[in-house]
Amino acid sequence: MALELWWGSGSPYSWRALLALEYKRLDYISHQVQFSKQEHQSPQLLAMNPRGRVPVLKDGDYVCFESLAILHYLERKYPTPPLFGHSAPEAGTITRVICEYQGYAEEHIQKIIYTILFQDMDGRMEEVERALGNVIGEARTIEARLSASSWLVGDSFSAADIVVFPGIQVLLRALERREARELRARLLPVEVNFPAIAAWIRRIEALPGYEHTYPPHWRE
Amino acid sequence: MALELWWGSGSPYSWRALLALEYKRLDYISHQVQFSKQEHQSPQLLAMNPRGRVPVLKDGDYVCFESLAILHYLERKYPTPPLFGHSAPEAGTITRVICEYQGYAEEHIQKIIYTILFQDMDGRMEEVERALGNVIGEARTIEARLSASSWLVGDSFSAADIVVFPGIQVLLRALERREARELRARLLPVEVNFPAIAAWIRRIEALPGYEHTYPPHWRE
Repeated sequence: MALELWWGSGSPYSWRALLALEYKRLDYISHQVQFSKQEHQSPQLLAMNPRGRVPVLKDGDYVCFESLAILHYLERKYPTPPLFGHSAPEAGTITRVICEYQGYAEEHIQKIIYTILFQDMDGRMEEVERALGNVIGEARTIEARLSASSWLVGDSFSAADIVVFPGIQVLLRALERREARELRARLLPVEVNFPAIAAWIRRIEALPGYEHTYPPHWRE
Repeated sequence: MALELWWGSGSPYSWRALLALEYKRLDYISHQVQFSKQEHQSPQLLAMNPRGRVPVLKDGDYVCFESLAILHYLERKYPTPPLFGHSAPEAGTITRVICEYQGYAEEHIQKIIYTILFQDMDGRMEEVERALGNVIGEARTIEARLSASSWLVGDSFSAADIVVFPGIQVLLRALERREARELRARLLPVEVNFPAIAAWIRRIEALPGYEHTYPPHWRE
């Protein structure tokens, strides 16, 4: 039975699942879900994930959702190449970096993206600036890690890179929009302000299969 | 070299690490940190975790923090008995249940606890009631799982139980306070409103070593 993945273009969570499948060179049937047509709320998807969210992975009769759960499922079922390191300390530190991203950066990144894409910035600049300040603090920590190493943890691409990368890419793209022109100077150009992060983005973009993970509507 | 754990009484994150160490029957040196004396911000702890948060685990030269990272480290280094299941589907579903708790319940639980313990409820009832509504929705999902099975995932105690249990215990204790008397009726008594959760709490309380994980200041 083939693996099947339901995913949406531009969803950082979906992007994680795609990166993991490509990195492990697994064959899978790709089902792109159109958010604009509410396809993530279709009866078929709600039967698999009652929360109506993607990504959803199906492997024979087994269904898994929540991006991090998909990474752990794939790791256990298809262990090579590993996403969670080669040793207990690597596994611990990879998970630690993921938890730190989720606990200290992700909600601020989401707030900035959501405000730029879907809200009026007027009257929200102060809270968005505050969120950006938090993101920049976390980005400095990540920049320091990537100044010492090619990947976030250890000497290989890992689940830590997979979890962090899509959120950063979606943020950088949102900051390119006209509505964000007053915000972007502290982060962009990334090559100038965060050169190690910029080099890391280029390394991930050069991974085999990366082009299959790139949000298709970003090419339009 | 012995394992060492720095933890704080009543911190649900610390409680997770203690539950994992006890369940795996590991020997460890226990360092209780007094939050009231700012011991979590001591130079020794900041050197191990620059964020100044507990739990922190040390195993020889290796230092790990963030509760979920500690669980994964322990699982990889000391795999028996397992915390993340016996198979890829169990590992995936355990992680999925953890992600759902973190993504849909935890922030609401934190808001309720923080408001009861540290803030004036006046003027905040509406947002706390809204948070409680979310928690009750998630509690119903958990109640359904536990009506069909003794543990949150599979037929053994797992990391899913470890992650969810302390937050629920801290919430229930906060709801016992006088300040929460208008809030508590929708949840308490747990035995009446959520009988399967109440039975699950008793099962966890009966696990070997549980008494070593119980917040000492709750006994006072």
